[in-house]
Amino acid sequence: MTVPTSAAEIDVLFATATALADAAREETLKLFRSPGGLAADNKLAGGFDPVTAADKATERRLREILAERRPEDGIFGEEYDNRTGTSGLTWVLDPIDGTRGYMSGTPTWGVLIGLCEELPDGPGRPLMGIVDQPYVGERFIGGFGRAEMTGPMGRTALATRKTRALDQATLFSTFPEVGTPEEGAAFARLSQQVRLTRYGMDCYAYALIALGQIDLVVEAGLHPYDVDGPIAVIEAAGGIVTDWQGGPAWRGGRVLAAANPEIHAAAMAVLNG
Amino acid sequence: MTVPTSAAEIDVLFATATALADAAREETLKLFRSPGGLAADNKLAGGFDPVTAADKATERRLREILAERRPEDGIFGEEYDNRTGTSGLTWVLDPIDGTRGYMSGTPTWGVLIGLCEELPDGPGRPLMGIVDQPYVGERFIGGFGRAEMTGPMGRTALATRKTRALDQATLFSTFPEVGTPEEGAAFARLSQQVRLTRYGMDCYAYALIALGQIDLVVEAGLHPYDVDGPIAVIEAAGGIVTDWQGGPAWRGGRVLAAANPEIHAAAMAVLNG
Repeated sequence: MTVPTSAAEIDVLFATATALADAAREETLKLFRSPGGLAADNKLAGGFDPVTAADKATERRLREILAERRPEDGIFGEEYDNRTGTSGLTWVLDPIDGTRGYMSGTPTWGVLIGLCEELPDGPGRPLMGIVDQPYVGERFIGGFGRAEMTGPMGRTALATRKTRALDQATLFSTFPEVGTPEEGAAFARLSQQVRLTRYGMDCYAYALIALGQIDLVVEAGLHPYDVDGPIAVIEAAGGIVTDWQGGPAWRGGRVLAAANPEIHAAAMAVLNG
Repeated sequence: MTVPTSAAEIDVLFATATALADAAREETLKLFRSPGGLAADNKLAGGFDPVTAADKATERRLREILAERRPEDGIFGEEYDNRTGTSGLTWVLDPIDGTRGYMSGTPTWGVLIGLCEELPDGPGRPLMGIVDQPYVGERFIGGFGRAEMTGPMGRTALATRKTRALDQATLFSTFPEVGTPEEGAAFARLSQQVRLTRYGMDCYAYALIALGQIDLVVEAGLHPYDVDGPIAVIEAAGGIVTDWQGGPAWRGGRVLAAANPEIHAAAMAVLNG
């Protein structure tokens, strides 16, 4: 495939991504904080599960939009079967990243949309992405030379921090129990060397790297749809996202997202130390 | 003292609390996500510390408002000396609860305002409180028979959940390392028995109890200003907040906030098990 380069093509892709994020915002908010509370309660009782319902309804709607606007592109989503495209591009969709946050009512889950090169065996390099927090009304978007967020306080250019030393860095992860025992031990080594470690932000932590508020996110056991949108946003803002060995993180697994190459190298050395 | 009971008195107290929260929202947002980033970096470099600056500027402004509107009431704040009142009421102020969240750019720190009975040695029983998240634009308010929140999706009555069993409960705490090793072990016992444990929400977790989204918050080492506003909000919504022995939590220390008396008793039994 050829990566889109014309301004007109790129405008179409941004418009499509924006349409997807708008629709996802509307769908996910229908059931956010709905009475009935914790999804799993209702699941156990054989009743209605608002998280799964919102996740699936949202992805269905996103697929309808893509079927209409971009029938030639592939789709790699969390909830339904993948669709192979013919354009060399594929949309990587996570309607609700952070379902535990969603079902706890926190404002740190998000809608993740990534546009990637399509390889024969799945998504390749992310080209453009969106991290959207529907309840707060924040959207982080990056790719093709653009990097910005819109939110309650208006529009801001995204730019990562210049932190160089681990002892000045802020590290986020979703859970303190990161991955396998071995992965958890590597995370603990890194956590001991940074200034501040925080948990529980789901995909919002990636947005905070792009916004220049924090320095590192370390995760393990991810899927492509957990990370492809965020990779595009962080890279567009000046950051770097790889696996723990410095290779591509497009396919998920162990992910190290960093504000800049120096802090990335420092963190990777400790994770593998 | 006599607890205020007339509708007119109570309206004045709500109007004062609202004026405080409005002013705090304005002040705290001036420096939130300000360039310069992590406060402590700048502190070390001898420069400007946005968190401390925002914290102090906000508390000064709240004290000015109280000096004008409620000169007879006491003030118990985080940043400045306490003021003893003559009315039997005292305002308990935390301009920025969750400074680590504030300096990381998360939307889960908050402004805490409590109105308490004033005892000879400090704040007593909370009567009314506000938990405000300025960036999201959410305000949780409770006391004197009122319990409601306003936010991006409008106005909602606050009401806690009816969860009875720990294995159905969602537990929050700010850090996985809760308090002393002994306190941490007690927390770990409880964490093993609940359905879901999440971290990193600062005072926002108390608001989520009042909103009926989660069931338990367990903390240790708190100050009165960390908890008096939230206690009033949670109690007004039908919840219960005590120390880990079931006594008052007005003075901070070890705090167990719960959606209802049954889940509170179940959690307390495990914490002391």
